[in-house]
Amino acid sequence: MSFQPSNPEFETEVRSSFAKQTALTSIGAELVRVEPGVVEITIPYNPDLTQQNGFMHAGIITTIADTACGYASYTLMPANSDVLSVEFKMNLLRPAKGSQFSAVAEVLKPGRTLTVVRADVFATSRDRDRELIATMLATMICLNKA
Amino acid sequence: MSFQPSNPEFETEVRSSFAKQTALTSIGAELVRVEPGVVEITIPYNPDLTQQNGFMHAGIITTIADTACGYASYTLMPANSDVLSVEFKMNLLRPAKGSQFSAVAEVLKPGRTLTVVRADVFATSRDRDRELIATMLATMICLNKA
Amino acid sequence: MSFQPSNPEFETEVRSSFAKQTALTSIGAELVRVEPGVVEITIPYNPDLTQQNGFMHAGIITTIADTACGYASYTLMPANSDVLSVEFKMNLLRPAKGSQFSAVAEVLKPGRTLTVVRADVFATSRDRDRELIATMLATMICLNKA
Amino acid sequence: MSFQPSNPEFETEVRSSFAKQTALTSIGAELVRVEPGVVEITIPYNPDLTQQNGFMHAGIITTIADTACGYASYTLMPANSDVLSVEFKMNLLRPAKGSQFSAVAEVLKPGRTLTVVRADVFATSRDRDRELIATMLATMICLNKA
Repeated sequence: MSFQPSNPEFETEVRSSFAKQTALTSIGAELVRVEPGVVEITIPYNPDLTQQNGFMHAGIITTIADTACGYASYTLMPANSDVLSVEFKMNLLRPAKGSQFSAVAEVLKPGRTLTVVRADVFATSRDRDRELIATMLATMICLNKA
Repeated sequence: MSFQPSNPEFETEVRSSFAKQTALTSIGAELVRVEPGVVEITIPYNPDLTQQNGFMHAGIITTIADTACGYASYTLMPANSDVLSVEFKMNLLRPAKGSQFSAVAEVLKPGRTLTVVRADVFATSRDRDRELIATMLATMICLNKA
Repeated sequence: MSFQPSNPEFETEVRSSFAKQTALTSIGAELVRVEPGVVEITIPYNPDLTQQNGFMHAGIITTIADTACGYASYTLMPANSDVLSVEFKMNLLRPAKGSQFSAVAEVLKPGRTLTVVRADVFATSRDRDRELIATMLATMICLNKA
Repeated sequence: MSFQPSNPEFETEVRSSFAKQTALTSIGAELVRVEPGVVEITIPYNPDLTQQNGFMHAGIITTIADTACGYASYTLMPANSDVLSVEFKMNLLRPAKGSQFSAVAEVLKPGRTLTVVRADVFATSRDRDRELIATMLATMICLNKA
């Protein structure tokens, strides 16, 4: 699908909002792609963010997937909007093993109020092909910026 | 509902597994209740874990809700099990404002392979009543410990 | 939780809207409870609505759960509203065996635009206690009636 | 993705199981595509299966999406398996208007016990292009046939 953004400053707005999310800086997240309806966020493996088996915690993986979903939706919202997550559902397909994790979100259906968006999360490592480890289906809401 | 745990050491096992989750220590999570089919986990507000408006990030709130769901399920699993999240769905009901957040998970249907579990997340603050800010419905799987 | 409806005619409106849903009449659904924030819908077992093992089809069970969620939300909406399902997530806990099925929906968080609501579905039969067979977590949207 | 079925009789098994689902016959569902990891099911518009505005009921649309997800998973399961829905999440993107509805399910991650699968539902009508009206993300379980 190809989308026409209504706010020409969408990339600047996404980057500026991303910079305010201290949770993302704290976990080492990086915004690597911002296109109309598509956003990609990566984080490196971090031994301080694991679950009991040493894999990255599902909640941390969810943090980048949710954020990618929110900003993919935000690229298509008008100027002076804010975006909030209404809900998301996450399926964890494989353990989050690897040296880097990448959440790629893509809008399925933009809307004036609600946007439905999907994200796939991939793990990469030196000795294996990029692997799909999780997938999210989410609903985002557009609010007027306070 | 009231459940009969099959592993008398369930609390020790939950606490020992929790202690291995570096992600939880890193975000300041505490295990405050471990009963058959019920687990509660809290985190304090932390300005380093926010989204763009200064509220706690949905991904961090999800981290404690998912973990509470996993351990509530784990209390009912046999000895030498491991628990993994299959999937969860999270509805975010209100902004995560407050000084402390508490995820209370309760098993709905335990099973030999799959357990279905629900968590409510509450925010507390000095000037307001405890408020429900999010709710999760999740599926957990029981594996033999490697 | 206890809710104050803003539309005193909420029960009449729910019953009148329900009567227009031909899908519900076709599957034999009945509206058995309409209270502020709570709606219950039942269907009898029907051998024409089963899956491959002779149990009621998950889609039919979903039909009454979704409808109960929609109308539980609708009881709290202002006059001249319409309600639509944004999304729902359903966990199927046990096979839908029994002579009657009852979906009980309860609003968790009403809102001007979005309402979050939960439904539990129970099976009853002569030889067994009422059993929880499924649970739904859903988001509904309030629209102005066209 | 391309999958290798382990049961060479997968299509026969899917068709034979489908034929036992009276719910599907009752709503006029047809199995139009059965490939490894992919199943498509259609239903015609039916004025007896609508919600309050005359659109097809979300529960009926869910019935074909859930069934397509189940059989897409089933194509990759070994002989003598049975498939059951663990859970699904459905986002309703547009009203179910049209003359025919088609649910196309595709496996994301097959597994010995659990399979994660996605379905998109499209509406077709004489005067409009095929439109995506709903999307499902589901978890299926493989059981030994009783």
